[in-house]
Amino acid sequence: MQIIQDTYEKLSAQVTQRQNQAANNPTVEATVAQIIADVRQNGDAALKTYTQKFDNVTLDDFRVPQSVIDEAYDNCPKDLLDALKLAQKNITSYHEKEVTYGFMDAEQPGVVRGQKVLPLAAVGLYVPGGTAAYPSTILMSAIPAKIAGVAKIVMVTPPQPEGINPAVLTAAKLVGIDAIYQIGGAQAVAALAYGTNQIPQVDKIMGPGNIFVAIAKKQVFGQVDIDMIAGPSEIGIIADENADPKKIAADLLSQAEHDKLARPMLVTTSLAIAQATSQAVDDQLTTLPRQEIAQAAVDNQGFIAVVDNLDQAFDLMNQIAPEHLEIQVDEPMTYLNQIQNAGSVFLGANASEPLGDYLAGPNHILPTAGTARFFSPLGVDDFVKRIQYVQYTKNALAKEEKAITKLARIEGLEGHARAIESRF
Amino acid sequence: MQIIQDTYEKLSAQVTQRQNQAANNPTVEATVAQIIADVRQNGDAALKTYTQKFDNVTLDDFRVPQSVIDEAYDNCPKDLLDALKLAQKNITSYHEKEVTYGFMDAEQPGVVRGQKVLPLAAVGLYVPGGTAAYPSTILMSAIPAKIAGVAKIVMVTPPQPEGINPAVLTAAKLVGIDAIYQIGGAQAVAALAYGTNQIPQVDKIMGPGNIFVAIAKKQVFGQVDIDMIAGPSEIGIIADENADPKKIAADLLSQAEHDKLARPMLVTTSLAIAQATSQAVDDQLTTLPRQEIAQAAVDNQGFIAVVDNLDQAFDLMNQIAPEHLEIQVDEPMTYLNQIQNAGSVFLGANASEPLGDYLAGPNHILPTAGTARFFSPLGVDDFVKRIQYVQYTKNALAKEEKAITKLARIEGLEGHARAIESRF
Repeated sequence: MQIIQDTYEKLSAQVTQRQNQAANNPTVEATVAQIIADVRQNGDAALKTYTQKFDNVTLDDFRVPQSVIDEAYDNCPKDLLDALKLAQKNITSYHEKEVTYGFMDAEQPGVVRGQKVLPLAAVGLYVPGGTAAYPSTILMSAIPAKIAGVAKIVMVTPPQPEGINPAVLTAAKLVGIDAIYQIGGAQAVAALAYGTNQIPQVDKIMGPGNIFVAIAKKQVFGQVDIDMIAGPSEIGIIADENADPKKIAADLLSQAEHDKLARPMLVTTSLAIAQATSQAVDDQLTTLPRQEIAQAAVDNQGFIAVVDNLDQAFDLMNQIAPEHLEIQVDEPMTYLNQIQNAGSVFLGANASEPLGDYLAGPNHILPTAGTARFFSPLGVDDFVKRIQYVQYTKNALAKEEKAITKLARIEGLEGHARAIESRF
Repeated sequence: MQIIQDTYEKLSAQVTQRQNQAANNPTVEATVAQIIADVRQNGDAALKTYTQKFDNVTLDDFRVPQSVIDEAYDNCPKDLLDALKLAQKNITSYHEKEVTYGFMDAEQPGVVRGQKVLPLAAVGLYVPGGTAAYPSTILMSAIPAKIAGVAKIVMVTPPQPEGINPAVLTAAKLVGIDAIYQIGGAQAVAALAYGTNQIPQVDKIMGPGNIFVAIAKKQVFGQVDIDMIAGPSEIGIIADENADPKKIAADLLSQAEHDKLARPMLVTTSLAIAQATSQAVDDQLTTLPRQEIAQAAVDNQGFIAVVDNLDQAFDLMNQIAPEHLEIQVDEPMTYLNQIQNAGSVFLGANASEPLGDYLAGPNHILPTAGTARFFSPLGVDDFVKRIQYVQYTKNALAKEEKAITKLARIEGLEGHARAIESRF
């Protein structure tokens, strides 16, 4: 794995330059726009056509029968079901602490102001097909939605030759998904955004997918809400001289194996740790089943940077704003204040990143590609909306009449001023 | 103003059909994409070129000198400054109640889980030029950002022949805007998203603008966060037989005067109120300075619907999800639970909508075009991000090892399982 040593300024320029590579793909964008327009116009008939074309299956009824879901759940091996239930318990207890409430403010005479928080009415979850069908992602998406109080959660997933992955069906039943539809790609996103006879229109679409899904989500943003446009996985590790290179290497590879474009990054104050980690990555790669993918990520996307001190390490990572950030240093909790930009943080040698992917409870749907500067992990807040309200007595309004009409007339909005004056 | 009476089903189909008209404009989209690419590539030189082309001004230094801002502030008439300060006070005291905090959870042995809430580092505010330059919008945008703790707030606004509107400069100084740049259009959005030598890169871009600004915001979404794509203003009024038609008419016109595409809507249980309001709208229109605009909105976008009962009225409004919703009925607060979709709610005869535009304190940057189904008013939450964290002892990890490795291997991610196993 490439080790970089340079001045801090050059390091900074080198490791952060990859951020501004936003995807633009006019051909895919045009194709996706066409698919969305077709689904809006022709509904289920368009869904049938695209499912024939892209998935090679002819379906008239997209919904997965309840009996198929029940059968998958009933036949789920006990150790897998227990693992899913433990994950569900931890994810639930973490996200329950995110719940926020509205307020009512009656501080001023004759004035009531407040805000109420309501769940979204319906949300749709996109689940990729094939080997990328992750039951854990269903838990991570649906549990915060349920805690928020969303009444209807539906799932779409591309039809598979051998049927939908039973672990996916089990996870869906466990968290109370209301309906599963066998549609995928941009057509599935369009159906959720606009509704068809069979597919309900939702308020928010979430979940990962290929470039067609990602671009479709971006195109329907505004018609519905979306979670985020997720990019390749990233892990940043900050390590001091006492960290364990074998554990660091294993954690770097756990993200490298996701995707050839995944980005494993180590910033350390110790050249010895850098060298030992590089060696450990090479060693561990030789027996990794997804070696080819991980190797490409390590070679082309990854780096090990050696810095002078931990302050520089945190500065670099804050510029990168990694999706996952491990702090493998002594007394890691005491560095929490130095972290400005990251999705999910893993403190200390035992908090290996996959702990967060599956079980600890914090979400694994996280901002990527530097967007942790302004985006947050998926949480309960993503499934609520806020409504403001205000009530005034005539006396209370009278006290503010002059200020309101002054501002309205400065802005050239006479009708606004007259609306207030019509009360007196 | 058009009065509609029909079965509830037909009314519902008629008044909600306008929702699904998302804007697609390939020509503008291509122009905007070209401008953004140019600003990314050529920075300030591109800004200079577009400012010459679109604003007919040659500028080398875009920043408004502090002396110009100070002069506007010092020369601001006392009644206007007092009005702005009263608005500032109310907006501040309302939005302070929106502040949320992180948490730390130490409920399980050997496990610490938490979440910290941090302000965005820098945000950019777009302020339109000309008569649409609203000082009130600067207060509404910047105050929640300040409360969230945003360290740097910059403003962009197109250069004006007579200089930037002094009320805008005064409002900007009052709320502590850090810098004002005379650039507008898609080029200003691009500059804030990617940064140039003169213009700082921000984490979030907010504020209204023309179609070029709106499409530019949509195109840079993901590179930065944006507030929302705001459409024409809307007001929905629910009125019973005791409401005052003159006040209702004045409030409908206060939104109609914004834009020919603004949408004034009344749903009432009383045909007499419907007819009297229609007449009052006609009467009040004759003397309104912005009569032409308001008349177009009333004629082409507005309606008065007569329904059988208040339940139907609330159902209709929940389908429409109006930006502003007035409840002009007896004991209005008791109907708060029936409101599912709306941006800002005005309860009772004294809570005229312009009260919320300027002074009550709740935000006036609100979801439009039915997006109140899933979007919220601008608030403190828009200016923060959340970071998750977790720390485990070895014993705590050991208890969950089997579940993690089971889930990892079910998902075909052997490297994830091995990362956990490397701890034992």
